[in-house]
Amino acid sequence: MLQSEIFPKTGKEPPREAESANHKLLVRAGFIDQLMTGSWTLLPLGWRVVEKINAIIREEINKTGAQEVLMPLLHPKAIWNETGRWEKAKEIMYQFKDHRGKEYALSFTHEEIFLDIVRKHITSYQDLPIALYHFSTKFRNEPRARSGILRGREFMMKDLYSVHATEEEFWKYYEKVRQAYLRIFKRMGFDVKITEAEGGVFTDNNTHEFQVLAEGGEDTIYYCKKCNWGANKELVTNKKLLTIKCPACKSPAIKKSKAIEVGNIFPFGTWYSERMHVYYQDKFGKKKPVWFGSYGIGSTRLMGAWVEVSHDQKGIVWNKEISPFDVHLIELKTKKEGYKAKKVYEKLNENGINVLWDNRDISAGEKFTDCDLIGIPIRLVVSEKTGNKLEWKKRESDKVYFFTLHKVIEKLLG
Amino acid sequence: MLQSEIFPKTGKEPPREAESANHKLLVRAGFIDQLMTGSWTLLPLGWRVVEKINAIIREEINKTGAQEVLMPLLHPKAIWNETGRWEKAKEIMYQFKDHRGKEYALSFTHEEIFLDIVRKHITSYQDLPIALYHFSTKFRNEPRARSGILRGREFMMKDLYSVHATEEEFWKYYEKVRQAYLRIFKRMGFDVKITEAEGGVFTDNNTHEFQVLAEGGEDTIYYCKKCNWGANKELVTNKKLLTIKCPACKSPAIKKSKAIEVGNIFPFGTWYSERMHVYYQDKFGKKKPVWFGSYGIGSTRLMGAWVEVSHDQKGIVWNKEISPFDVHLIELKTKKEGYKAKKVYEKLNENGINVLWDNRDISAGEKFTDCDLIGIPIRLVVSEKTGNKLEWKKRESDKVYFFTLHKVIEKLLG
Repeated sequence: MLQSEIFPKTGKEPPREAESANHKLLVRAGFIDQLMTGSWTLLPLGWRVVEKINAIIREEINKTGAQEVLMPLLHPKAIWNETGRWEKAKEIMYQFKDHRGKEYALSFTHEEIFLDIVRKHITSYQDLPIALYHFSTKFRNEPRARSGILRGREFMMKDLYSVHATEEEFWKYYEKVRQAYLRIFKRMGFDVKITEAEGGVFTDNNTHEFQVLAEGGEDTIYYCKKCNWGANKELVTNKKLLTIKCPACKSPAIKKSKAIEVGNIFPFGTWYSERMHVYYQDKFGKKKPVWFGSYGIGSTRLMGAWVEVSHDQKGIVWNKEISPFDVHLIELKTKKEGYKAKKVYEKLNENGINVLWDNRDISAGEKFTDCDLIGIPIRLVVSEKTGNKLEWKKRESDKVYFFTLHKVIEKLLG
Repeated sequence: MLQSEIFPKTGKEPPREAESANHKLLVRAGFIDQLMTGSWTLLPLGWRVVEKINAIIREEINKTGAQEVLMPLLHPKAIWNETGRWEKAKEIMYQFKDHRGKEYALSFTHEEIFLDIVRKHITSYQDLPIALYHFSTKFRNEPRARSGILRGREFMMKDLYSVHATEEEFWKYYEKVRQAYLRIFKRMGFDVKITEAEGGVFTDNNTHEFQVLAEGGEDTIYYCKKCNWGANKELVTNKKLLTIKCPACKSPAIKKSKAIEVGNIFPFGTWYSERMHVYYQDKFGKKKPVWFGSYGIGSTRLMGAWVEVSHDQKGIVWNKEISPFDVHLIELKTKKEGYKAKKVYEKLNENGINVLWDNRDISAGEKFTDCDLIGIPIRLVVSEKTGNKLEWKKRESDKVYFFTLHKVIEKLLG
């Protein structure tokens, strides 16, 4: 893609009210635009990153056997009354009446909606398990919408819901999703800790959160370096523990402030299905409630979280997996203007490499500044100086190398 | 994909309240599920169709040079007041207050939101044109939500917005989009008429609608068989025309009831940009308002429209372009149970062909009934009778052919 055509141009200054790195950098670099507090447009660069994140999530979630759907965002009051959450979650849910006095809520989650679909379509154990997910908008009446794209009134989430005949089958699938989540975060380049947490308006059970250690997060977590154990602060505080030790090895837990929660998985047991009458007949014809769980990842939040953990003074540092482009091609004025860069651009495209080509008529300094700000992992420079080769530089390093186009393609595809 | 794993099973009876073909068939065949009047979940099969429709739209819209984004669904009142549409579109817009008394609207369209982004980022003519689109949810406070998925309170739309420096450039792009729309509908297999229509709460100018001739639609249109002219009934009625003739060739227009509007394009001139202060500096430093247009296609509605124009007594008849799968593979019991179909299934998948394999332990009759109901364009049967060949049948025809697997793959890829 030509940089002259990308909307919008980068900005010189971060927004005045911006405090977090993701807010400052994603706005300046032209990835997101704020409509109001906690509400963002994903601009072309931001949309590309979120689409890459979603593609990774989709691939790994499909491996668990789940199927993609799209559920509605506007929900009737009656369905939320079945579980008592119309009242219980009043603070966080946008609720309103239409002209005719009918009451609605905006989707802050989809447990009730999913179970409503399921109960219409199942009769026997042979219809189970069912696992459905969608990428869709969540609305939360958020008093402290802040931290850029990390905490919004409206954001994009992948949420997955599953029902099973038995407790054993439920936990088997829960573990499958836990592993899928770990693969997703690993592929994206995150180092996550799994922590136990309270279920809030979702469940009285404990749940599992996936936490990224980073500045700009809101959570404080405890975890054990040796064992695969962690807990978030609220859980620890409410249990009134004085010394926090790993339950497995008994060594003292490490405390970290300001972690960012990027995923959450919820074991619900049969609480929801009993209230919503989601029953099936087992092999012996006996009526039983289904075992139920839900599993969420905030995909727009992940973009923000990545910027928090991966940036420097000059800008964002994307990795290959979620960068909006594979390579940033910069042309410095030569006598045969544009000729060589154009050829490189075409060759890279032919090989299926996504290139952002800075073809603008501005100074070399401005081009390099924008390039560092946007943060594509590889910078290629074409100039008189580079002769028959291309200058290759990684975003996070100062070292430059000179490679032939052939070698560049080999490295990018490798 | 294995049919035993697809959620949900097909239904024997259409919903009692269903009147239109798309409502009856899409529900029975398991493509959609109703949450409340005018609000639908896209189930796995329905989501596949809409994703195929969206992919065609995306490809053709990208060719116009537009860039994909994602704009918010929850809008502050202030922005709608700038154009007076908070009042003007009150009937159709969901409007509400949050706990703190702040007023919001749900997206019924995005003209104001797009222009708010644009005005923050442009200064000169060199920043124009800008064309952005997204696929997102629209909410309409719809008193007569009906006709299955054709008219909903909530639905998916591709909406595109563009701004230009001059009237001439605007109309050039408008024509480009008109052509892109024609290509989209043609690729999907629709025969559309372009009609002039009134702009409603969007504009006092006339707009252009894309109309599919079909049962189940709500519009009445007039068009000329020879010339590329058409108009919808409201426009004709409000102009109080007694005899309706084509303005070009003067021959009498053909009247058709119940057409389905599947797309709409709006030339706004500078009305919106003047009210929202979206100005740029021209070559001579003079401040001018941008020329503005918007362009919508309802992608969930297109799925419904297709079913209206393409079904028979037995079920839906998809075409290749938007079918949820390329081929429906049916296995009839053989002595070496499952062996042969499994091989066929694997071979087709290896060749990048999307197969729905009915591997269920039910009667041949039930399999054929479901196959006709779901409507995948090609049916392949494997049985003892087919020997070393496969039985090949098109959904819309009764003729069967016997081809080798090699030949089948050749035909499907061709």
